[in-house]
Amino acid sequence: MTDNKRPHIVVVGAGFGGVKVAQKLAKLPVDVTIIDRNNFHVFQPLLYQLSTSELDENEIAYPIRAFFRNTKNVRFFMAHAEDFDAENRVLITDQGEVPYDYLVLAAGAMTNFFGMENVAKHSFGMKTLQEAVAIRNHVLRMFERATKCEDEAERRRMLTFVCVGGGPTGVECAGALSELIYGVMAHEYHDLDFSETKVVLVEAMDHVLAMMPDELQQETMRVLRDIRKVDVRVSTQVMDYDGEELKLKDGSVIPTKTVIWAAGVKAVSFVKNLGAETDRAGRVVVEKTLQVKGFPEIFAIGDCANFVQDGRPLATVAPVATQQAETCVENLKRLIKDPAAKLAEFTYKDVGAMATICRGHAVVAMGSTKMKGFFAWVAWMVVHLMRLAGTYTNMTVAYKWFWNFLFGLRLGRVISDTEMKDI
Amino acid sequence: MTDNKRPHIVVVGAGFGGVKVAQKLAKLPVDVTIIDRNNFHVFQPLLYQLSTSELDENEIAYPIRAFFRNTKNVRFFMAHAEDFDAENRVLITDQGEVPYDYLVLAAGAMTNFFGMENVAKHSFGMKTLQEAVAIRNHVLRMFERATKCEDEAERRRMLTFVCVGGGPTGVECAGALSELIYGVMAHEYHDLDFSETKVVLVEAMDHVLAMMPDELQQETMRVLRDIRKVDVRVSTQVMDYDGEELKLKDGSVIPTKTVIWAAGVKAVSFVKNLGAETDRAGRVVVEKTLQVKGFPEIFAIGDCANFVQDGRPLATVAPVATQQAETCVENLKRLIKDPAAKLAEFTYKDVGAMATICRGHAVVAMGSTKMKGFFAWVAWMVVHLMRLAGTYTNMTVAYKWFWNFLFGLRLGRVISDTEMKDI
Repeated sequence: MTDNKRPHIVVVGAGFGGVKVAQKLAKLPVDVTIIDRNNFHVFQPLLYQLSTSELDENEIAYPIRAFFRNTKNVRFFMAHAEDFDAENRVLITDQGEVPYDYLVLAAGAMTNFFGMENVAKHSFGMKTLQEAVAIRNHVLRMFERATKCEDEAERRRMLTFVCVGGGPTGVECAGALSELIYGVMAHEYHDLDFSETKVVLVEAMDHVLAMMPDELQQETMRVLRDIRKVDVRVSTQVMDYDGEELKLKDGSVIPTKTVIWAAGVKAVSFVKNLGAETDRAGRVVVEKTLQVKGFPEIFAIGDCANFVQDGRPLATVAPVATQQAETCVENLKRLIKDPAAKLAEFTYKDVGAMATICRGHAVVAMGSTKMKGFFAWVAWMVVHLMRLAGTYTNMTVAYKWFWNFLFGLRLGRVISDTEMKDI
Repeated sequence: MTDNKRPHIVVVGAGFGGVKVAQKLAKLPVDVTIIDRNNFHVFQPLLYQLSTSELDENEIAYPIRAFFRNTKNVRFFMAHAEDFDAENRVLITDQGEVPYDYLVLAAGAMTNFFGMENVAKHSFGMKTLQEAVAIRNHVLRMFERATKCEDEAERRRMLTFVCVGGGPTGVECAGALSELIYGVMAHEYHDLDFSETKVVLVEAMDHVLAMMPDELQQETMRVLRDIRKVDVRVSTQVMDYDGEELKLKDGSVIPTKTVIWAAGVKAVSFVKNLGAETDRAGRVVVEKTLQVKGFPEIFAIGDCANFVQDGRPLATVAPVATQQAETCVENLKRLIKDPAAKLAEFTYKDVGAMATICRGHAVVAMGSTKMKGFFAWVAWMVVHLMRLAGTYTNMTVAYKWFWNFLFGLRLGRVISDTEMKDI
């Protein structure tokens, strides 16, 4: 499978971090195996556009093999990573054992329901392509069902959509849902009374977008409330949800059939099987060199790693993963040359934060620069287009956004999971 | 729901025929309900491009409600039509009863396995969006599995893809699969030996594309065989298939895990519940006026109708459905004015036939005009783009085709049905 003389580096996860590590390793005299449970890389920051019918699957999913078309020392292995035999340097997957000389854990994160089983059972996560498609199908189906429902209370439950979590995902999802509903659905469901529809955003803190300066937090809440008709509820938490009624800590109850949970993530759970130190969110604690504590041949980067800087773990965002990928590859290079080499220490350079609220409105904070409104929105689009994998996807998305901007269309409204009876 | 004074016309099926009927009826003083089991119209002639990763779902699926955004007398009702209470003029669906004054059956066709249960169980049909996606996921998964398979015979079975039926669907599918495999996969599966891959086309007659002149049939077989490396087997039939070995009537056996069945269609089976006369393919026999024999208030058009012209039933192709839609609406108009009115008789005007074989190669026969090669291919693209629903979809597809033509990319390679374990 691999040349025995060359070190074999196994990368688990083809997200932003994993792909970057493999791409940079491809230029070195090493053999690389990149493992993912899917055959595609997902541009996670735009998942919410898939769940709100703006983009389609293959505009945010990119075939992993297409990244490595011309780099024959990188092999893709589609599998679920499940366990470790660290002593023998073997990764255990559902497709068999994969031996390694060095291992890079870039396995990412999944939705964290903080142990609330009822909520987990009845809510939608939005960390995977499949989850985003499930949300799209469900939201569209709620509208179809509402047109046939004679009971007003039940109809209102179908037409109430709750996003939990005031981070970028929750904010963007609430804004995009509101646009979909009042900008598109309202023109096409002639029988529905759109005063019965409602989009709610629930956030535990007293503000949304915690990483943003106060002024932009206020702007975000203002746009959501005044322009996008979103019922923004801060300083309250979800207590329980049975699929029909969402109970909040402040005593209020929201009748709804749709709860989208964007209130927290945890590392994918297989990483804990390594037996290394993990934090409360299941993330593996790493050294300054990005090596897992006690496992010098194993690195962890991105959402599944806990890297402490300025006394706090870094946030689970793409720029952390891609910056860590650089240091990780540099350290692998040094280790391969000399196992006793002094390794580089990672420092995250803050690139700022941005979130889009709806068409024409975004907030951007970079160092001392603060932007809001239309130009922030354009900046958001440019940055996301630049980051999108591959020129092709890039141009398709640009084209679709342009079209959406002009006409407010959402033609991705396909309920794809209808069971096909023989009719 | 509907104004009692205005006639209520129910259209079953939102394919080419049903949508056209509803669009034309929308301009009249009538109430229309269009029923479909999906919330989208599908551009069936391009399903094969979805199953071969060239286009994505929302490029060939168009939200039905988007057609009727500005026509408030057309209501969409998402349901499975199941039965008839013709005496009381009621259509029975899984979502309840729908009364009608006039009924238009435009319910379409499904795959016909001609009673071969084993074949039906193990083969893929390609008449619905869901079926096309299932083919895409399966084909891509076969390649991923083949890279992990040590057994040569098993690997060859995974890498052999059989299309059954030499009509346009079978020809186009075989050509597109070959392009996908040798033009894309061969560059990205560095571990596979592509001499182990095989695309086979099986046809019962001694020629493909029965509706084409002999010269173009020969050209099609030549391009498939010489340029696209397709193993074209004519004059033989499928006898049995167990998911591992495809048995043909000539005694040969093809070890394969993939059989795509494009060898026949039958009307969707609920139409037989009407109790009207049907043909062997389950199609309702209609009068020259497109009324179902014995049911003057019920019309049938498109793939679910048997209309005899020149002694033979018309083919199940889109132009028949759209031309019949015109006559159907004209007759409804006359009937509504005067139940005793003389109705128009339908005559199909042949618009010719065309099929694409692969990038740069197509065959076109229109009256005495015969075209092949590059210009036929361009003609095929222009005609299909013009027929695609909606300007938007139109331009996206044009853009993707242009890109595919230049670079031979296939970025729709997403295996979307991977089960998400907690890893």
